[in-house]
Amino acid sequence: MTYDLVLLRHGHSEWNAKNLFTGWVDVDLNEQGVAEAEAAAPLIRDAGLLPEVLHTSLLRRAIRTAQITLDGIDRHWIPVRRSWRLNERHYGALQGKDKKATLEEFGEEQFMQWRRSYDTPPPELDVDAEFSQFDDPRYAALPPEARPRTEALKNVLDRMLPYWYDAIVPDLRTHGTVLVVAHGNSLRALVKHLDGMSEEAVVGLNIPTGIPLHYQLDDAMRPVVTGGRYLDPEAAEEAAAAVANQGR
Amino acid sequence: MTYDLVLLRHGHSEWNAKNLFTGWVDVDLNEQGVAEAEAAAPLIRDAGLLPEVLHTSLLRRAIRTAQITLDGIDRHWIPVRRSWRLNERHYGALQGKDKKATLEEFGEEQFMQWRRSYDTPPPELDVDAEFSQFDDPRYAALPPEARPRTEALKNVLDRMLPYWYDAIVPDLRTHGTVLVVAHGNSLRALVKHLDGMSEEAVVGLNIPTGIPLHYQLDDAMRPVVTGGRYLDPEAAEEAAAAVANQGR
Repeated sequence: MTYDLVLLRHGHSEWNAKNLFTGWVDVDLNEQGVAEAEAAAPLIRDAGLLPEVLHTSLLRRAIRTAQITLDGIDRHWIPVRRSWRLNERHYGALQGKDKKATLEEFGEEQFMQWRRSYDTPPPELDVDAEFSQFDDPRYAALPPEARPRTEALKNVLDRMLPYWYDAIVPDLRTHGTVLVVAHGNSLRALVKHLDGMSEEAVVGLNIPTGIPLHYQLDDAMRPVVTGGRYLDPEAAEEAAAAVANQGR
Repeated sequence: MTYDLVLLRHGHSEWNAKNLFTGWVDVDLNEQGVAEAEAAAPLIRDAGLLPEVLHTSLLRRAIRTAQITLDGIDRHWIPVRRSWRLNERHYGALQGKDKKATLEEFGEEQFMQWRRSYDTPPPELDVDAEFSQFDDPRYAALPPEARPRTEALKNVLDRMLPYWYDAIVPDLRTHGTVLVVAHGNSLRALVKHLDGMSEEAVVGLNIPTGIPLHYQLDDAMRPVVTGGRYLDPEAAEEAAAAVANQGR
């Protein structure tokens, strides 16, 4: 008996175009992001991986990606579960800031540490700052100490993992095929866990947007093939090459 | 302690324009239906009835209406529960048939009995007929004897009521405000139950599309005001008058 987990990272949002740090700010997909969600549908259908249950974050860009993709494969009716534990990394005081201006203000070393360090988060965001989601009603049931004000990837892993064990894994065991639509960093955290990656290795991991990533999992919920399999391997390779070439 | 239940009937679908019996056939909203869903959002927001949980049927026109309406009030992230028990009435052998042609073929008496009788369903639809949903994967978990092949309003009430008691009422008690987005007949059945309407009275009940209907419920889950309150009373009155004038 194996289980099928399909991971999908949402595509371009309105703040990608504006080059702003997003984190928990609830921006919508832009047209390119909608097209990416639409393009994911036939990949999932052609792979025969029709999901029985959907898990998403509480953020619109993931929710909408899931709706569009599921609509494209006539699976709009499957059960949906959402959790803040699948949210993007909270970007702390950087949320809403321009990436280029931040790079210029703080220099490349600090900038890259905030972006890529495994366990050094950016400074905390004030709870009453413009782009704080601290008082958003969707987090109202969480006691204040559990509501992040900033996160490094390590913090994302720590808050994501309970949801993996208590919500996604039971659905995999019951239903067999589960789709998780989430974010760059919540999915990096999950992949780090699944593949048993080191803290050093995950720093270099980038998950392309809009290309479903399929993990066949064994009874211990470990990948049959480490790294899984992108449903469009060529596009995934191109995306990886583009990331590697950034800044050259 | 009272509870707030908001009922919303989805708007125009692609088969309204074509004048076909729809039932369990999973047609999409048309442009007018999308506009109706968008227009429901400010009514709910202005009434201060932000839902904590959503319940929908398994049919796209209700699911999409809910998504559009919730998106308009920044509530896209609330928990969602879906059930076939909120589906539209199964229209039996009439599904996919032209309404005008059916009226001409069977005459007005038979036609009106199928449309409005409380307990006389249309003929059963063959399980392998073109517009049968009998083998649709979304109903695969239901044993065959529980999958309808036709329904009268009475049958809708019988299969809807367990969901009211076991799914919607517990959410009302836990969360206070619940939105149910469903269909003409599943909502008529629920309103009949809530208002304690007779079988004769419910025959004359029509719920307009796209206008949220608010029930404040007491601790026995009975309406504080019989009939509830439409969030746009004038539009609801106009819609009722339009129905009353049909066929004059």
